[in-house]
Amino acid sequence: MATMKNIPLILMGCGGVGRQLLQHIVSCRSLHAKLGLHLRVLGVCDSKSLVVASDVLSNELNDNFLSEVCRVKVDGSSLLTLGGLGECQVFKNSELKEKVIDVASVMGKSTGLAVVDCSASSGTVGVLTRVVDLGCCIVLANKKPLTSTMEDYYKLVSHPRRIRHESTVGAGLPVISSLNRILLSGDPIHCIIGSLSGTLGYVMSEVEDGKPLSQVVRAAKSLGYTEPDPRDDLSGMDVARKALILARLLGRRINMDSIKIESLYPEEMGPNVMSVEDFLSTGISLLDNDIQERVRKASLNGNVLRYVCMIEGSRCEVGIQELPKNSALGRLRGSDNVLEIFSRCYSEQPLVIQGAGAGNDTTAAGVLADILDIQDLFP
Amino acid sequence: MATMKNIPLILMGCGGVGRQLLQHIVSCRSLHAKLGLHLRVLGVCDSKSLVVASDVLSNELNDNFLSEVCRVKVDGSSLLTLGGLGECQVFKNSELKEKVIDVASVMGKSTGLAVVDCSASSGTVGVLTRVVDLGCCIVLANKKPLTSTMEDYYKLVSHPRRIRHESTVGAGLPVISSLNRILLSGDPIHCIIGSLSGTLGYVMSEVEDGKPLSQVVRAAKSLGYTEPDPRDDLSGMDVARKALILARLLGRRINMDSIKIESLYPEEMGPNVMSVEDFLSTGISLLDNDIQERVRKASLNGNVLRYVCMIEGSRCEVGIQELPKNSALGRLRGSDNVLEIFSRCYSEQPLVIQGAGAGNDTTAAGVLADILDIQDLFP
Repeated sequence: MATMKNIPLILMGCGGVGRQLLQHIVSCRSLHAKLGLHLRVLGVCDSKSLVVASDVLSNELNDNFLSEVCRVKVDGSSLLTLGGLGECQVFKNSELKEKVIDVASVMGKSTGLAVVDCSASSGTVGVLTRVVDLGCCIVLANKKPLTSTMEDYYKLVSHPRRIRHESTVGAGLPVISSLNRILLSGDPIHCIIGSLSGTLGYVMSEVEDGKPLSQVVRAAKSLGYTEPDPRDDLSGMDVARKALILARLLGRRINMDSIKIESLYPEEMGPNVMSVEDFLSTGISLLDNDIQERVRKASLNGNVLRYVCMIEGSRCEVGIQELPKNSALGRLRGSDNVLEIFSRCYSEQPLVIQGAGAGNDTTAAGVLADILDIQDLFP
Repeated sequence: MATMKNIPLILMGCGGVGRQLLQHIVSCRSLHAKLGLHLRVLGVCDSKSLVVASDVLSNELNDNFLSEVCRVKVDGSSLLTLGGLGECQVFKNSELKEKVIDVASVMGKSTGLAVVDCSASSGTVGVLTRVVDLGCCIVLANKKPLTSTMEDYYKLVSHPRRIRHESTVGAGLPVISSLNRILLSGDPIHCIIGSLSGTLGYVMSEVEDGKPLSQVVRAAKSLGYTEPDPRDDLSGMDVARKALILARLLGRRINMDSIKIESLYPEEMGPNVMSVEDFLSTGISLLDNDIQERVRKASLNGNVLRYVCMIEGSRCEVGIQELPKNSALGRLRGSDNVLEIFSRCYSEQPLVIQGAGAGNDTTAAGVLADILDIQDLFP
């Protein structure tokens, strides 16, 4: 066995995914040790504060400390309360980003550093681009940096080996890694079509069974399948972000505003016009007939409706499509994600990747696999 | 753009996959150059001879030479005829392995070397283990080295980052890379069930439609879907090799003789007893009724029959299984491969990977993706 290799990292974002990642890191200690690896957590931050090991070159936040981080965040407290524990420094909002960049400039050229973004913030892109410039790696579950301007995007992917972002699309499903393999082998991807929202997958398959949209959405909300405001799912914006990430991966130089997005509710039922309660109690019922009619028409053609992202040639759109009942997408039931990839090698029948595309456990597992995937970049 | 990184490699095996790999390498030159990469082919060998660039530290076999290699092999000629072309050396059978090891010892510690096994030989394992010892990487489409003894297997995977073998299971389908991601993230895999033979997938779905086995196999042979002797497919040995590779990847310390293998023909119709012609004209017809009866019984339970590999706990077997019609495997039609993976993250619904699992193009594309995946190990 070679000597132990250290992968130093800083975690941004202590929501469900970030906390789950810390737990995975701790519970995988012996597995990773067998592989000669040690994931050395130097710092953890949320939107307001950052805790960093007092000496990043030799120390780390130990596993007890990481458990405390999780406990504090579950309790809804601030990381600032951890200042008294052990050898760490705590930084507030105003200093947070500069401190991360400081650590990156110390570690970047010597031991390497991975900055892991498990936040849902659009504010991390500046730190991430600086960190890449400083020779560090970035691992993202956060979609927003990759759906910012093309200028930001170019900066983030300027060293393609130093960025991983599997969990930005389909959670831990091996979507990005598989697409990268296909692209690197020179197999041109003609078309991607996928159902990338577990919520909308569930909604569309329930509606297909004849249930009214309003009833399905209310049930989905009470099952915890939707965002607190289900319109965040129904707007298609989350799927559009994933579509943009995939399109850019295929080399399309486009922005969010180039994507045709079909919202499942009209503007006059938007969050600025109507409360969540009004939308769920009265607004959405007005949409039942229209969608039921579309389901019926599709069914007459032997087809079903799916809310999909479709990338083909210059076309990049998300919305309801009529699809053959016996395609991978047409057969989809419940909340699984599915991606169909058509390329030279997969021309008649697509390469299909299907499975749970949401959940903190699988999302964090995807992030962890990404971190291990860049291990060869560390000395 | 950083300076160009060289990945020196030696290709073993110039059959369909090896030749296709050379063509892919040449046609991806500009794509890879954009990524700062150059795949430097130092040598190519078949079972009888090896051609190597005259000075492996500074030269390579250029693209014209590689085209000549392909032409010579398609014509059925020997690589020895290439001796007169340009600055290369040619070695015959007896010197072949020692020369590959020589090159590996020169390149291993300095520039690195990838030895790529696209042969179908069980004789390469000795060279491959030596090459790993010498600090080089190995990339395999050849299943046989990985299905040799556990002692050989341990040697081959002794440096897990230096071996890739995506194309040993499901051709270019991202099966091994996805399983590795899951395993590295500490997500325990409970069960793998897959249809890993395009030929047997085709046969089972045709038989399901009521066609006699004998007629289906004869048709498959005339379509070129089977080996020259279809019993090489029907024996299940090829699927068993894939099952063993997957089981070992999951940490099972087993050999081929631990795998329960169901052959679709009885011993008395084996290649040592009956000619291919007799088997196809008379032997196989005697099997029609039995399989049709099994199809019928399964159908009464709402199930279908599939020839699958199944790895669960200590169980590792390949053979016909009765499966729910509406599972990913049950829905499978034609020659696509499917793998269902059940783990903690994919517990209720499996992670499913499906697509073309055979063909030189996709197999070689998988090998090429593997080569690019180890690029960070090269200086």
